[in-house]
Amino acid sequence: MTKQSAFIAAVLTAAFLLLMPFAWAAPADFADIEAEIAAQHDEGVQRLQEWIRLPSIAAEDLGYPEGPEHMKSLLLDVGFQQAVVVETDGKPGVFATLDAGAPRTLGVYFMYDVKQFVPAEWSSPPLGAVLVDKPGLGKVIMGRGAVNQKGPEMAFLEAIRAIRAAGRQMPVNLVLVAEGEEEIGSPHIGQIVYRPDVQAALAGTIGVIMPSASQGRDGIVTVSLGAKGVIEVQLIASGERWGRGPGKDVHSSLKAMIDSPTWHLVHALNTLVSADGNTITIDDYPQPLPISAAEKAMVAEAAKRRDEAQLKEQLSTPRWIDDLPLEQALERLVSQPTVNIEGLVGGYTGPGGKTVLPHKAEAKLDLRLVPDMTAEGALAALKAHLQRHGFGDIEVNMSGGYDPTSTPASAELIQAQISVLKAAEIDPILWPRSAGSYPGYVFTGPPLNLASGHFGLGHGSGAHAPDEYFVIESSNPEVEGWDGAIMSYVEYFYELGTP
Amino acid sequence: MTKQSAFIAAVLTAAFLLLMPFAWAAPADFADIEAEIAAQHDEGVQRLQEWIRLPSIAAEDLGYPEGPEHMKSLLLDVGFQQAVVVETDGKPGVFATLDAGAPRTLGVYFMYDVKQFVPAEWSSPPLGAVLVDKPGLGKVIMGRGAVNQKGPEMAFLEAIRAIRAAGRQMPVNLVLVAEGEEEIGSPHIGQIVYRPDVQAALAGTIGVIMPSASQGRDGIVTVSLGAKGVIEVQLIASGERWGRGPGKDVHSSLKAMIDSPTWHLVHALNTLVSADGNTITIDDYPQPLPISAAEKAMVAEAAKRRDEAQLKEQLSTPRWIDDLPLEQALERLVSQPTVNIEGLVGGYTGPGGKTVLPHKAEAKLDLRLVPDMTAEGALAALKAHLQRHGFGDIEVNMSGGYDPTSTPASAELIQAQISVLKAAEIDPILWPRSAGSYPGYVFTGPPLNLASGHFGLGHGSGAHAPDEYFVIESSNPEVEGWDGAIMSYVEYFYELGTP
Repeated sequence: MTKQSAFIAAVLTAAFLLLMPFAWAAPADFADIEAEIAAQHDEGVQRLQEWIRLPSIAAEDLGYPEGPEHMKSLLLDVGFQQAVVVETDGKPGVFATLDAGAPRTLGVYFMYDVKQFVPAEWSSPPLGAVLVDKPGLGKVIMGRGAVNQKGPEMAFLEAIRAIRAAGRQMPVNLVLVAEGEEEIGSPHIGQIVYRPDVQAALAGTIGVIMPSASQGRDGIVTVSLGAKGVIEVQLIASGERWGRGPGKDVHSSLKAMIDSPTWHLVHALNTLVSADGNTITIDDYPQPLPISAAEKAMVAEAAKRRDEAQLKEQLSTPRWIDDLPLEQALERLVSQPTVNIEGLVGGYTGPGGKTVLPHKAEAKLDLRLVPDMTAEGALAALKAHLQRHGFGDIEVNMSGGYDPTSTPASAELIQAQISVLKAAEIDPILWPRSAGSYPGYVFTGPPLNLASGHFGLGHGSGAHAPDEYFVIESSNPEVEGWDGAIMSYVEYFYELGTP
Repeated sequence: MTKQSAFIAAVLTAAFLLLMPFAWAAPADFADIEAEIAAQHDEGVQRLQEWIRLPSIAAEDLGYPEGPEHMKSLLLDVGFQQAVVVETDGKPGVFATLDAGAPRTLGVYFMYDVKQFVPAEWSSPPLGAVLVDKPGLGKVIMGRGAVNQKGPEMAFLEAIRAIRAAGRQMPVNLVLVAEGEEEIGSPHIGQIVYRPDVQAALAGTIGVIMPSASQGRDGIVTVSLGAKGVIEVQLIASGERWGRGPGKDVHSSLKAMIDSPTWHLVHALNTLVSADGNTITIDDYPQPLPISAAEKAMVAEAAKRRDEAQLKEQLSTPRWIDDLPLEQALERLVSQPTVNIEGLVGGYTGPGGKTVLPHKAEAKLDLRLVPDMTAEGALAALKAHLQRHGFGDIEVNMSGGYDPTSTPASAELIQAQISVLKAAEIDPILWPRSAGSYPGYVFTGPPLNLASGHFGLGHGSGAHAPDEYFVIESSNPEVEGWDGAIMSYVEYFYELGTP
């Protein structure tokens, strides 16, 4: 449910051979800014540590209102002239502006929330934000949100701090929106972005960027031209809604005379996909656009630079769907919608067994969407399908989701990235769309119709997983550490600020 | 997985109208024993409380070896001359004998383990064994094991204590086996019962009885002529065993190119039962014997004394399978095998969603068996079916189970129950078999070929559920409290001891 460019980039690029030597160096005339970045290094990392130690998790109602208040103070601290908390029907957002008197204005999208975590699964405390040595990578900061998205976002803020500390004006003005519900599918982001003053401010930008650690473990950079949409739904079967089966858990022997809501759910699920789990069989489901020639070419180019064996090892996956070769598997990844079961939970879930006939069972699904599918259309088709097949009683609880988002490669927001990267002799991989999702549709769709993308050097991984990290001191010359990540935003600001 | 006669009796009898006034009274010549029971009342209840506070739960490896040691000391304390802990490959059993020089010997089956519990679901602490007032019932002891099976078992032991305290000899000798794994399906009971000295001792008995609270809430007594068998199995699909899908949880967007073990499990489950969840569709599955005319007559008689509305309310179930009338639903209950899902667990199970593609998913099933099905035959058919349908990689972990058990109504063990009840002007319901299960097959099958059943007045409920209780001071004259339950065993001993 997140853009997760770090994760997706890792997935897609970890295996690609880096063909040319990488050397990120600030042009001579940024020496003053570089000096400020170096001077603030330790304090900047500390600011990131403090932020990680203050998690906001919407699914658990944890860290509100501390999260948005802290977000606001971080923005004011680096020089935004105004920052306000924006209330919504869910968790609040933050809206901030930095007017540098520059000719152009960049939109920025932040999330201040993080994914849930299970401390027992981590090798260091998920809220510890401890600096640990990671073989082959160097010194990394480990903690929930390190790469998704606090590390890159804090590097972005440190870039603003360094430019101003060098006595300079920012080369672009900024309009920033932050939300606190990204990890539950951004259910109220429209209430932030479309608030009249926020929408008006965004309408004057050249597009909206989200900071991200877009380098793979090997340094390769992926520039993504959009992202899939997604809906997250919980399907809940219960005796109460069904009007059959028990209204509370009863002894399992009663299955002989009482219906089972759990079997009802299993049979409903079974109608959603083909027997191999891979083809969607929901009646009248919105169809994806065929993959375009340009997209196929991007995938083919990327697949050529692959190390398929390493990618499979990283995902502990011995084969792709239908035993496809990597190129076709990657075509599927960028172009096909999915119906995935995130989790099943019902009845007794502890060790061994317990002889109950459960009154309720739940399947947690996510459905990824590609152009021109819409969240609304997919949800409606799912509900109509269940109704038609005798499962109309099953509760369909959409907890979040949104449409896919696309930005043309020709957009200035994208071209400026490529310029900055090429100047540093990085040959990025252009990628049709991330298989993960972020709510870029609020920017790229009407009424704003802006470009939207992700940018930032640096590397991290483990979003949504244990031991999430972001590299601070890189031992790999092809991967940027903290200072290099910050410097990449400086370069980007100057590139965009020069019409 | 337990006999649960209290629960099943409640299910089956709560709704049946009591047609004749109930009056349990000890014959005059037991006045001395009755006096001893009254004198020991408070201490006996305390002994039960102490036992409840010492739970043994095999699924959680809790309370061993304290459980069997305590069981042994309880037996020695009431006058068994010898009691030994019997080691098995799992949790130990206990074997004890009481030789009263009587002409006849009664076999006794105890369980000292209890079901798992979730304290948050209880209105008083599950290990508190607190005496609480329950409207319509009186004063009950509330705690895990209160009715399943420590309450009835302790009442049984108090009966022995009272007879001996009155200066009498026990009218029957006793051979007792206790196990500590009943709630996980008695996987090692054979190692206890078939130990040569134990088997030899049991071979000399007139049959094996398990104490139970066989009165429904309204006082009705059910005499059951056997019980279904059961197997409990966990079906586990994993990427590792499948050779497809991930070996660890990965980001859900990867569903577009990686197979899902969870979908694999859902499709496997779907092949096991019909679309309504009620007819088993496992290939070559052992078939049940048709319900006999005698069994149909028992069910018809029981159904006539029903209050169907009250039964449905108690089970919060608005209708039976296929909208059957109660009589046909009860026929199904006693005669049909089942495939029940006890629980589903896989991937993310917390609140809301989490965008993962899980590497593993598990379904916990129990399959109830009726004559002449066997646990071995059912398991073999399940495994062969999965193999044949392309699910041979799914792990089938049988955690426990055994064959059905039957005892003819003509058995002395049963006839003695009926005599005792009729003498007290109770007209019991004869019932073909409990839909729940207990490992009576070790006694009724070869080589022992004994009768086996349950007996005991008193009432309780909540086995395997929160707020399990057993009535101590009954406010309903038709339901026996603690002293009456103890007295019912005294009567039974004397009835059996008189050839």
